[in-house]
Amino acid sequence: MAEGSARRRRGGGRAGNAARRGGAVIEQMDWRLPVNTDKPTEPLNEEGVEAIHIGAMRILEEIGIEFYNEEAKAILKEAGCTVDGDNVRMGRDFVMEMVGKAPSQFTMTPRNPDRALTVGGDKILFGNVSSPPNYWDVEQGKKVPGTRDMCANLLKLSQYFNCIHFVGGYPVEPVDIHASVRHLDVLYDKLTLTDKVAHAYSLGKERVEDVMEMVRISGGWTDEEFESGPKMYTNINSTSPLKHDEPMMDGWIRLARRNQGLVVTPFTLAGAMAPVTMAGAVAQSLAEGLCAVALAQYIRPGAACVIGTFTSNVDMKSGAPAFGTPEYMRATQMTGQLARFYGLPMRSSGVCAANVPDGQAMWETSNSLWASVQSGTNLVYHAAGWLEGGLIASPEKFVMDCEILQQIQRYMEPAITATTEDDIALDAIKAVGNDGHFFGIEHTQERYTTAFYQPFLSDWRNYEGWEAAGGVWTPERAHKIYKEIIANFEAPPMDEAIREELAEFVERRKEEGGAPTDF
Amino acid sequence: MAEGSARRRRGGGRAGNAARRGGAVIEQMDWRLPVNTDKPTEPLNEEGVEAIHIGAMRILEEIGIEFYNEEAKAILKEAGCTVDGDNVRMGRDFVMEMVGKAPSQFTMTPRNPDRALTVGGDKILFGNVSSPPNYWDVEQGKKVPGTRDMCANLLKLSQYFNCIHFVGGYPVEPVDIHASVRHLDVLYDKLTLTDKVAHAYSLGKERVEDVMEMVRISGGWTDEEFESGPKMYTNINSTSPLKHDEPMMDGWIRLARRNQGLVVTPFTLAGAMAPVTMAGAVAQSLAEGLCAVALAQYIRPGAACVIGTFTSNVDMKSGAPAFGTPEYMRATQMTGQLARFYGLPMRSSGVCAANVPDGQAMWETSNSLWASVQSGTNLVYHAAGWLEGGLIASPEKFVMDCEILQQIQRYMEPAITATTEDDIALDAIKAVGNDGHFFGIEHTQERYTTAFYQPFLSDWRNYEGWEAAGGVWTPERAHKIYKEIIANFEAPPMDEAIREELAEFVERRKEEGGAPTDF
Repeated sequence: MAEGSARRRRGGGRAGNAARRGGAVIEQMDWRLPVNTDKPTEPLNEEGVEAIHIGAMRILEEIGIEFYNEEAKAILKEAGCTVDGDNVRMGRDFVMEMVGKAPSQFTMTPRNPDRALTVGGDKILFGNVSSPPNYWDVEQGKKVPGTRDMCANLLKLSQYFNCIHFVGGYPVEPVDIHASVRHLDVLYDKLTLTDKVAHAYSLGKERVEDVMEMVRISGGWTDEEFESGPKMYTNINSTSPLKHDEPMMDGWIRLARRNQGLVVTPFTLAGAMAPVTMAGAVAQSLAEGLCAVALAQYIRPGAACVIGTFTSNVDMKSGAPAFGTPEYMRATQMTGQLARFYGLPMRSSGVCAANVPDGQAMWETSNSLWASVQSGTNLVYHAAGWLEGGLIASPEKFVMDCEILQQIQRYMEPAITATTEDDIALDAIKAVGNDGHFFGIEHTQERYTTAFYQPFLSDWRNYEGWEAAGGVWTPERAHKIYKEIIANFEAPPMDEAIREELAEFVERRKEEGGAPTDF
Repeated sequence: MAEGSARRRRGGGRAGNAARRGGAVIEQMDWRLPVNTDKPTEPLNEEGVEAIHIGAMRILEEIGIEFYNEEAKAILKEAGCTVDGDNVRMGRDFVMEMVGKAPSQFTMTPRNPDRALTVGGDKILFGNVSSPPNYWDVEQGKKVPGTRDMCANLLKLSQYFNCIHFVGGYPVEPVDIHASVRHLDVLYDKLTLTDKVAHAYSLGKERVEDVMEMVRISGGWTDEEFESGPKMYTNINSTSPLKHDEPMMDGWIRLARRNQGLVVTPFTLAGAMAPVTMAGAVAQSLAEGLCAVALAQYIRPGAACVIGTFTSNVDMKSGAPAFGTPEYMRATQMTGQLARFYGLPMRSSGVCAANVPDGQAMWETSNSLWASVQSGTNLVYHAAGWLEGGLIASPEKFVMDCEILQQIQRYMEPAITATTEDDIALDAIKAVGNDGHFFGIEHTQERYTTAFYQPFLSDWRNYEGWEAAGGVWTPERAHKIYKEIIANFEAPPMDEAIREELAEFVERRKEEGGAPTDF
């Protein structure tokens, strides 16, 4: 499907009209980098922050992290850390010195410079669901393995919605493509169907290098230009408790050397891979993250690092992971306090345990998205499309989540809470008096079209109007919008020479056999 | 149904066993008055608070409020206000002097003293949906007028769930009971099916007096005891813009004189009954509320007053009210800042515009409930069961909302964010090391059963487990729980003499014709 669309674009020049058609499926908010003006919710006092910090430092000093990567160990040994087999211990002075070199804010610039992202500070940015092996939609009504078509459609949604700022991992794992060449096909799709900041999985050097090369080609950059500042990023997960794997560390080092974005996100599920107490799980998560940040800063002082959190809890009955819980919210807020303590940008997620896009999915997702706002999160992963604890991607859930994301963006607009004389509107109140209506007056008419958030998915008709229109529940309405967006989608413009260079690179690397699959 | 259950209770003494059976339908959180420890979200700076305050004061001074109630006007005239026909203007010195007499916190004690409520300060309390004329459930699958049975079932849910702290207006309007005696039957049901703080509609003196008398009987109180402190409350709505109606004011005065709880909640829909700008709508809402508080404090200094907010916005396309929007959230937060400025307890709501308990219902309701947390709200009306902008009550929505309310209660528990040495769990992390699992260790096992929130409605199984169990979506799961709760419900104990006195009162007042219906 993606290649078909690419061929169509070669045959004609209807991009402008098509883009306008595509844009008209729904009226959505303009692209912007939302500024989170809310003071973060801070459940910890100063002593609490200090206690978690000391906990993280003592883990690094007294227990150590296992690094299953020879290069990482050699670098850390050179840096003065205590390396014993795979175990690496590092002192708090070293960690804090290294972390102090990391910028609190940096820029990532994709092939379309209008989509450049400021990561850190008061910005909150959203990305698509990443990495589910399975897919669910209203039409299929069941869980099925992901395919390249499904993946491409979710990439189209990621491009279409202005409230999605970056394109994370594969929005669904296309298991119909052989693992050796999957990254080539999906990155071709991602770089041609979207013009937003892209991501490389750290799953072996060939994949990482291929993706960096493809992103470099997509921007028409020389190697020097590519390395002049982050154009893309990787996200690595530690293997909790207290381990960093070979391929993840390899990708981390490669991207650090080439000055790309680095996000480290331990998956510290309290009661399973981390202590049952949330403060303990957060301390462990920070230790696992900070040692990777320290490594990156030693390799390249000033490297663009983000500390991620994925601290949640298990179901007490089954041991299954739970998401968007009260414990998840508080862990995210606590991590936010520590991220500010360390001066690092922060990543969290939009998550749920629900299997279908129903009420549970929405309260769990709302809980996690509001926690990202409350914690001062800068990058919100999985912000649209996630189900079943990340095992299912769903286009309806994607569309529903984007309605929430737009509401959060609108919530951030200072216009809502402005208190100028015009906003207090005493003259309007006087004019209407005790027996009138505000609808028809000038003060209203002048502001009416922009005064309030306008949803694209919420149905605000009364029951009778809603019923007369078919009585359609939210997932079915989302399905219709998803299908219309896909039907009207046109990829963002790309220089034909660049597209050909990308296609040739993919072809050549496929001929070479792609990447090993024995990792 | 309610009377049937009352008769059964006369015939036997199985209340204890039955209560245990009823309690076992789900495992729910214990009754508690949740303490909101979060610092409120404050979008306004000091100047913004001052600007809205001045706006409210100037509305009261320069425009005035129309009081369609002779007694209210006479009292306010005596107090020194400028009365011109129905228009009453009052100076800011008078308003602030009166508001200064209101307590920032008070107690309401229903017939069961264990259900006493502290209103104000850092407490956040939740009440059932109130006043929808219609009903929807999964079984009916359509909107139907409310009946006494439906109303009684929703009262049973209100009693059953420990996260529901007070019983507001009729959870659905039972239109199968004649309006002249409806209050008698519903209050009989409410006072026998629940033992939580109850509410009287201010819809004419007979209704208000009947309800006060029935609450007095329910507690076995003398008149003096009844008036020694609030046992119940009323909620009045101004008729925006800038009017207070005859029956609402009548009830307000009657409850003030008898020292009962007083909640005033203007319904200032921005762009319709209030300015299109949220700061203007909030200023108008405060003016409409504060003049009622001033009246109550003049009648009885120290009267238990609560300032309510119901400021939302209209749909730009249809003019229909919208709920749980970004603008609603910010208006609630702004009102919270002003309520603290005035030192008054605050009421807001759990609301949505959705017609059925689907995804939209849950993101809108989540938005409004989190806004109640963020604003420092003390009483959350309509916190469970509300659909279609308050035109529909739904038992499934009730059960779903209670799952959210329990999560908010759990979110408030300081245990989640504790940072003692035991919580940081360094010894546990050391014991597990780099290659273990936390599940089986003592630190986990000791804390496992209480460490995390345990949902009663969320399904945390994986897709296959959920599918094998029937693949049931949230509303259908909620329906099943609702039916089980009703089937197992037993009313809280009540002294038989009191029940008979209540029944005789209802009978006598029915013989007298109840209340006039020409209001």
